[in-house]
Amino acid sequence: MPFVNIRITRDGATAEQKKALIEGVTQLLVDTLNKNPATTTVIIDEVDTDNWGVGGRTVTDLRSEAK
Amino acid sequence: MPFVNIRITRDGATAEQKKALIEGVTQLLVDTLNKNPATTTVIIDEVDTDNWGVGGRTVTDLRSEAK
Amino acid sequence: MPFVNIRITRDGATAEQKKALIEGVTQLLVDTLNKNPATTTVIIDEVDTDNWGVGGRTVTDLRSEAK
Amino acid sequence: MPFVNIRITRDGATAEQKKALIEGVTQLLVDTLNKNPATTTVIIDEVDTDNWGVGGRTVTDLRSEAK
Amino acid sequence: MPFVNIRITRDGATAEQKKALIEGVTQLLVDTLNKNPATTTVIIDEVDTDNWGVGGRTVTDLRSEAK
Amino acid sequence: MPFVNIRITRDGATAEQKKALIEGVTQLLVDTLNKNPATTTVIIDEVDTDNWGVGGRTVTDLRSEAK
Repeated sequence: MPFVNIRITRDGATAEQKKALIEGVTQLLVDTLNKNPATTTVIIDEVDTDNWGVGGRTVTDLRSEAK
Repeated sequence: MPFVNIRITRDGATAEQKKALIEGVTQLLVDTLNKNPATTTVIIDEVDTDNWGVGGRTVTDLRSEAK
Repeated sequence: MPFVNIRITRDGATAEQKKALIEGVTQLLVDTLNKNPATTTVIIDEVDTDNWGVGGRTVTDLRSEAK
Repeated sequence: MPFVNIRITRDGATAEQKKALIEGVTQLLVDTLNKNPATTTVIIDEVDTDNWGVGGRTVTDLRSEAK
Repeated sequence: MPFVNIRITRDGATAEQKKALIEGVTQLLVDTLNKNPATTTVIIDEVDTDNWGVGGRTVTDLRSEAK
Repeated sequence: MPFVNIRITRDGATAEQKKALIEGVTQLLVDTLNKNPATTTVIIDEVDTDNWGVGGRTVTDLRSEAK
């Protein structure tokens, strides 16, 4: 019955990568907490780098400087 | 003052359907908990089926198999 | 498959009221969007009034003044 | 280490405005709670006005009437 | 930089189990998306079974019947 | 109309500090985006350090080592 929300920056994660993430986190909840995978829900949100901040800076700016 | 977040798969819900959902859940909070509708906030998030998993599978894959 | 998160102030909502809320919002998603109730998940969060703000004031303060 | 999620209607907030918001809320957490800005994360979600309801009405409708 | 929110029913998950869950999901994001573990944040919310509904019923009731 | 959710570790933030945080973030949304403070909602969640992970470790463990 767990509900998992994963938020990542929008960086071109592929459908295959998202499948692997959903499969992996569902299995992890079986392995660590014996949760029923059939009722585990996972939602991935992809967020624009202008809308994500760390350390008071947007990820857009942090990456621009790191180049 | 309640805050409600409804997450559904992105499947072409119409503006009329979303209105009905917002109106209905606001009224439900009046009926069950006597909450003030004027300050009830509802946000609907529509999520791509590649980004939603149940039972360790994406909804994209579950629907593809169900055809 | 919808996921609904309802946030209310912690005001002594009873188990019966929370049942009615969960039942009602699940049915609403059937009625408005034809969603499958079996896979609809609802989570209610009850939040202390010191931790909830509207108009820049805590609900604790707003209620204190309204007495 | 704080995590902040700011949800606003999608109204053309500029990258500069979002930068100011991220910078401001990160500094606020330093000023009020002495939180480490380096590990403060902020995510801004912009939501369509059809998907946001207040008082049982969509923001789309509320704005239309207010014209 | 990912942010993960895991919601489970409050069932006595131990500190060791929560450590394993946090470690596992952080590693999963390295393995599937090459995300930097140092800036990955995970928050686990434990929710009372009266406040969690599936299929229009509370988990409290579903478990009571399943006995 | 903005909705803000601030998540911090449960570390004894006082009611006064939470008031300052709610007041500050509401004003910030006025200053940066000209949002109406009357309809701005802020919810603060305080999370146990066993339930918060950074870098694959719980905050409980990170703090224990830092002593």
